Amino acid sequence: MSERGYFEAAREAAARALAEDLAGYGDITGSAFGGSGAARVVAREAGVLSGRAAFAATAALVDPALRVDFAAADGDRFAPGDDLAGLQGPLAAILAAERTALNFLCRLSGVATLTAAYVAETAGTRARIAATRKTTPGLRALEKEAVKHGGGTPHRFGLFDGAMIKDNHIAAAGGVRAAVDLVRAGTAHVYALEVEVDTLEQLDEALAAGAAIVLLDNMETAAVREAAARTAGRALVEVSGGVRLERVRELAEAGVDVISVGALTTRAPWIDLSLELEA
Amino acid sequence: MSERGYFEAAREAAARALAEDLAGYGDITGSAFGGSGAARVVAREAGVLSGRAAFAATAALVDPALRVDFAAADGDRFAPGDDLAGLQGPLAAILAAERTALNFLCRLSGVATLTAAYVAETAGTRARIAATRKTTPGLRALEKEAVKHGGGTPHRFGLFDGAMIKDNHIAAAGGVRAAVDLVRAGTAHVYALEVEVDTLEQLDEALAAGAAIVLLDNMETAAVREAAARTAGRALVEVSGGVRLERVRELAEAGVDVISVGALTTRAPWIDLSLELEA
Amino acid sequence: MSERGYFEAAREAAARALAEDLAGYGDITGSAFGGSGAARVVAREAGVLSGRAAFAATAALVDPALRVDFAAADGDRFAPGDDLAGLQGPLAAILAAERTALNFLCRLSGVATLTAAYVAETAGTRARIAATRKTTPGLRALEKEAVKHGGGTPHRFGLFDGAMIKDNHIAAAGGVRAAVDLVRAGTAHVYALEVEVDTLEQLDEALAAGAAIVLLDNMETAAVREAAARTAGRALVEVSGGVRLERVRELAEAGVDVISVGALTTRAPWIDLSLELEA
Amino acid sequence: MSERGYFEAAREAAARALAEDLAGYGDITGSAFGGSGAARVVAREAGVLSGRAAFAATAALVDPALRVDFAAADGDRFAPGDDLAGLQGPLAAILAAERTALNFLCRLSGVATLTAAYVAETAGTRARIAATRKTTPGLRALEKEAVKHGGGTPHRFGLFDGAMIKDNHIAAAGGVRAAVDLVRAGTAHVYALEVEVDTLEQLDEALAAGAAIVLLDNMETAAVREAAARTAGRALVEVSGGVRLERVRELAEAGVDVISVGALTTRAPWIDLSLELEA
Amino acid sequence: MSERGYFEAAREAAARALAEDLAGYGDITGSAFGGSGAARVVAREAGVLSGRAAFAATAALVDPALRVDFAAADGDRFAPGDDLAGLQGPLAAILAAERTALNFLCRLSGVATLTAAYVAETAGTRARIAATRKTTPGLRALEKEAVKHGGGTPHRFGLFDGAMIKDNHIAAAGGVRAAVDLVRAGTAHVYALEVEVDTLEQLDEALAAGAAIVLLDNMETAAVREAAARTAGRALVEVSGGVRLERVRELAEAGVDVISVGALTTRAPWIDLSLELEA
Amino acid sequence: MSERGYFEAAREAAARALAEDLAGYGDITGSAFGGSGAARVVAREAGVLSGRAAFAATAALVDPALRVDFAAADGDRFAPGDDLAGLQGPLAAILAAERTALNFLCRLSGVATLTAAYVAETAGTRARIAATRKTTPGLRALEKEAVKHGGGTPHRFGLFDGAMIKDNHIAAAGGVRAAVDLVRAGTAHVYALEVEVDTLEQLDEALAAGAAIVLLDNMETAAVREAAARTAGRALVEVSGGVRLERVRELAEAGVDVISVGALTTRAPWIDLSLELEA
Repeated sequence: MSERGYFEAAREAAARALAEDLAGYGDITGSAFGGSGAARVVAREAGVLSGRAAFAATAALVDPALRVDFAAADGDRFAPGDDLAGLQGPLAAILAAERTALNFLCRLSGVATLTAAYVAETAGTRARIAATRKTTPGLRALEKEAVKHGGGTPHRFGLFDGAMIKDNHIAAAGGVRAAVDLVRAGTAHVYALEVEVDTLEQLDEALAAGAAIVLLDNMETAAVREAAARTAGRALVEVSGGVRLERVRELAEAGVDVISVGALTTRAPWIDLSLELEA
Repeated sequence: MSERGYFEAAREAAARALAEDLAGYGDITGSAFGGSGAARVVAREAGVLSGRAAFAATAALVDPALRVDFAAADGDRFAPGDDLAGLQGPLAAILAAERTALNFLCRLSGVATLTAAYVAETAGTRARIAATRKTTPGLRALEKEAVKHGGGTPHRFGLFDGAMIKDNHIAAAGGVRAAVDLVRAGTAHVYALEVEVDTLEQLDEALAAGAAIVLLDNMETAAVREAAARTAGRALVEVSGGVRLERVRELAEAGVDVISVGALTTRAPWIDLSLELEA
Repeated sequence: MSERGYFEAAREAAARALAEDLAGYGDITGSAFGGSGAARVVAREAGVLSGRAAFAATAALVDPALRVDFAAADGDRFAPGDDLAGLQGPLAAILAAERTALNFLCRLSGVATLTAAYVAETAGTRARIAATRKTTPGLRALEKEAVKHGGGTPHRFGLFDGAMIKDNHIAAAGGVRAAVDLVRAGTAHVYALEVEVDTLEQLDEALAAGAAIVLLDNMETAAVREAAARTAGRALVEVSGGVRLERVRELAEAGVDVISVGALTTRAPWIDLSLELEA
Repeated sequence: MSERGYFEAAREAAARALAEDLAGYGDITGSAFGGSGAARVVAREAGVLSGRAAFAATAALVDPALRVDFAAADGDRFAPGDDLAGLQGPLAAILAAERTALNFLCRLSGVATLTAAYVAETAGTRARIAATRKTTPGLRALEKEAVKHGGGTPHRFGLFDGAMIKDNHIAAAGGVRAAVDLVRAGTAHVYALEVEVDTLEQLDEALAAGAAIVLLDNMETAAVREAAARTAGRALVEVSGGVRLERVRELAEAGVDVISVGALTTRAPWIDLSLELEA
Repeated sequence: MSERGYFEAAREAAARALAEDLAGYGDITGSAFGGSGAARVVAREAGVLSGRAAFAATAALVDPALRVDFAAADGDRFAPGDDLAGLQGPLAAILAAERTALNFLCRLSGVATLTAAYVAETAGTRARIAATRKTTPGLRALEKEAVKHGGGTPHRFGLFDGAMIKDNHIAAAGGVRAAVDLVRAGTAHVYALEVEVDTLEQLDEALAAGAAIVLLDNMETAAVREAAARTAGRALVEVSGGVRLERVRELAEAGVDVISVGALTTRAPWIDLSLELEA
Repeated sequence: MSERGYFEAAREAAARALAEDLAGYGDITGSAFGGSGAARVVAREAGVLSGRAAFAATAALVDPALRVDFAAADGDRFAPGDDLAGLQGPLAAILAAERTALNFLCRLSGVATLTAAYVAETAGTRARIAATRKTTPGLRALEKEAVKHGGGTPHRFGLFDGAMIKDNHIAAAGGVRAAVDLVRAGTAHVYALEVEVDTLEQLDEALAAGAAIVLLDNMETAAVREAAARTAGRALVEVSGGVRLERVRELAEAGVDVISVGALTTRAPWIDLSLELEA
């Protein structure tokens, strides 16, 4: 996404998160501590980094005098014990920022790390691993970017920038063709249409209706292979449906262009990182 | 938390999440669909429900004409196939609300479900399972409540409503007593002090300094048992430190009052729920 | 656009506009007037109506007790002297709402009216009249909808929901193909690419690169006709470039799909409407 | 207006306008373009400049690294081909800011240019050309200032800073005197009263009631001349009512102090300006 | 002020005040209390009521189910023991709203009560008691209205709706006339000019320059009498400068139109009111 | 409170207060004055300073070019004639900021000054003077800090960071013990409980129930002395109830820990300060 949007999203998310931690008198424990200090973020397990923008925005909002330096870039792999970032400045500010800043880094690195695992499985194929709209409410911009940091592709941002005709639309319209016609008539001419199909028959209908992308939902791998072959470049082929890490290579080798995986954001545990004050 | 605060938090989170999904022309696929419809939220796996407020707020914000009815209460256990809630109203509104409303329910039920598993392990002891501040940025109020729906207790909300002296504070002040004195002098007289201790020596110091709560961090179970006995009701005893489900009963039986568990919010997978349009 | 987004945009624009008119003590003249009254919006010239949502939102924000009834729908043609809408309620509220409510109706009906004139010129062809991003800052959602009320199509909402490669992009990338590749690699797979071309050579390049839409910018009509023929359905054909009303039919008959016209929003005078208090 | 208010208004309008263009992933076309660039704003027709504050605010909000330099001041006349301003910085930022920044400059220069034409017609008289409250919703501060850039005077800002008794008020109160008394009793003592009159009889009543300004609405020029003479400095004389450019000198020479013209903001076409990337 | 503005100001102030009292988990004491209840606001000392709008807004924001009924109107005098208002609804909501709702009523009734004392002193004269801009930051609209509830007049709202030339302006411009000319040239023609004068010489200058209002600042009563006589209706005469209650009648009888008194808002103690739960 | 929270609160309060003074065209008198100037804040009576953050924030928001220098710190005592602060920069900005900046300083210094008088009365005792929640709506953070500047202690911020069981709670629960149990069960384990008691019997109950703080409400001094003795360090002892300056020493000597005084914020007159432009 554009730099401006990403940093703005990070800043807003950081402000909201800080407001959760610092109402009333703020940090009633730490504000008693004067003087300056320094701290390092250290990895306790391996992973792929994401969340620097939100980490930095948190620090800046707590106190513009806090200096942040990163020892790794978003997208970098790290090992247990690696030093990822440093904070330097007023001790009370470090203490106030610690938890909120870490929460972003742990969560977003968790998403990047799981994405990287899926991407690694597809190495050498043309399949890209894509995020879905199953993102944590309020963190979509950051999580979509975390997927990119993990080597994935973000898919549409929301309902507004990609037209996707799903089973419910097809049922409501009474068929693939009818759904496509209805959506084309009702929206601007600038959108590519993606059509979800469950069967090869529906695939043919979707291609005939001019779908730019076909989404094969919950199909067996053999059917996916057949669908990819039948499409033959007339549309992009995407596959989805509870895709676990064990199955992703098989799908990638079936010839699809995109594999979208909800688990990237719904099943990624936080990466364990800690902030260690320097003596 | 107070009803007002909780519903307000749910409404704000829903508004933010909808803004992620509905910029520009909004739902460019679904807005072409006229008429009314009805849909049910169905569980695809077992769990404990949480998130009704955000689910309902999402629906209301998309279209006040959407009617929501719940077939289960927050805190209820459900089985695969169970019907949890219904949406009725303009078809376009159901389609626009679907993903955002479900995201809340799936995420928050995930937290409630994992909490309930921890709580079940401590049945018959006096130990309570508590959340930490490792909550998803922007969702603290909802996730703390989800922990309550799972049978847990929410702990302090943020840095502002509970004074907790941790290792960093003790190191900076030069000892437990010094840290307690510093914090007491710097804050209002109304806060109970919680002091984190790593050893039994520190425990004695904390009790002598008048700690209302002692937090045993990363201690062996035997040491925990000894600490609880030594405290003998002079303070509440809390334990923390990467507590996994397998170990929680052992800790509960060691005589502690509270076990705080970051994993409730950092390692809880989403519960799989789907919205099914009725024919 | 979706109903929710449109009404929300209208409400926000109305609130902002009212804030311009009602700071400090509010309406220092009209608030002295008690009692109730009724008023009608009367057309002083012919036009096509747009702006009902903002008109109604203005009234509701000034005083929820104001009742609005419309005698015409958005998109309806009206003649001088026609009664378009009524306001009923507290006299002071009518006086306070008058100017702001009318400003929306006059401006947006101006856009709808000019659009309808362009659309009328293209009757019987397949060409659609489209808006551009040259909209009044802050009123894009309302003006795009006004274009629809006038019979036009709204085009992409902003930079985020349609990928359009223009001369600057082509120059920066060093050619049509390079620009297309760059944009494809840098964005999600879900967007249709529109490519602006100045010559038939560029048109060929754009089609070869897989453009979903080609934009013929400032071409002579003969070249437009040739371009449309050459494209032969492989992409949508759009034309733009200072298109005046006199020339629009000629272009429509040249076989294009879309004619985008900045003047719809940059050269549309307000329609003269007045609010008349009933005796 | 005060500098602070004007720049604040510009910044807010720019932020809103950018939000219309840069939701979701932001500029999905331009963000793929790295490196730096420079561009110039060039006039394609003659006019009077206005909108520098909003242009600059737009650039700064897109990217603080964008450097803006102006080759002309607000209020300056320019000719076709004139270079008005430059943008220098990240290429992606220039592309993202282009349309929004230009929209302000084109619209506001349009208002300044039309105002200047009216002002030129009144050269040598004491009549001033004034704006009305028929401003684009959301842009009042900027459009009122554009009128000043064109040589006009802005009139009251809204309903809150000038008390104007119009025909509706007079009718509701049952006469000029009664309306004046009602408004005087109901508001603070600090406001000058302006009274709209349709006839010389009403003029006499208004002057007798102590009006500080009389507004001659839709009167013939002869009546205006007589009214100005009869007022004889006891009040300021303002005239209004669909005043076209052709008639404005005649009115100015009739001895009025102020001519208020809705067309300055309701009938001003945008000035055609373009942003040209430097090779 | 207009109803809309006043209620909007009350609602915003109430929301802000509640945010001060109800962060985090909200009312951690009262939210444990279920069931319904009823309470009355009882006066513990005599006064004049103001603040109903903010009281009601507070209750509505805490819980729309809270019912408020008032036993007295704004501007009514009350005696110790009088019942002023009632709250009925969920007990937890009454407890959460109590302090915030009372704070408004106590503060604003304090302002109204002190104003009424000043007004009572001027009975039978034409002098009006006016507020100044020395209002509590954030409560101007409510305090200006409280002054009206006490029988006073609110004066200009802020720097934007009344032009007042004070000693600093005169010094900076180099004289009364120069200051008046400067301000007239720099602002719209719609404002009445008020000029502050310290001496009778300055008074003459101000009248000659066309001041609509003259403000006699810190003058002896004899000089005020002379000034009022000399002005002879050519301008409104206002007097100010630390006017204590004991001196206000003397000034009123000196023939002035307006006496502005900072103490109405800077020296008014809160009225003692209590909320009593009914058994 | 934490620096960040305090400065943020000051900035928000300043922005709100400026919005009250500078709507529409802003300062319609002062904006005509060009050039630079300098001014000093001078005390007209003795007091204790508070409000520097809001004073500085006001100046910075009006114009970042305004330079503020303070000649005294928050908490410093000053005498009539003392120079407290200076403003330097654009004359128009000084004039626009004057009233708003002073309003903060006068109000908050009033609170600090009255607090200091109470604190002086308790010299040599261990009793601390505490603020209550009877703060001006919207200014709680600033007024609580003003109390600290006067030597007092701020007490809980709101309903969310201190659990206080008052007479209403006790009545609703049916006794002290029942109320304590209800609140303990309903909230997190981290809060100290404060219990308000009217009699020595209730005191015993509160201590037995484990109250961390007991609040003696409206008790005679002899009873207070007895209560303090009876508590004997098992809980903090706080006293409240319309405590006037004359009685505070007597209470302090009765052995209490905290005396909370509503009058600090409800009966503190503004300190008279003036801004004097330098010639």
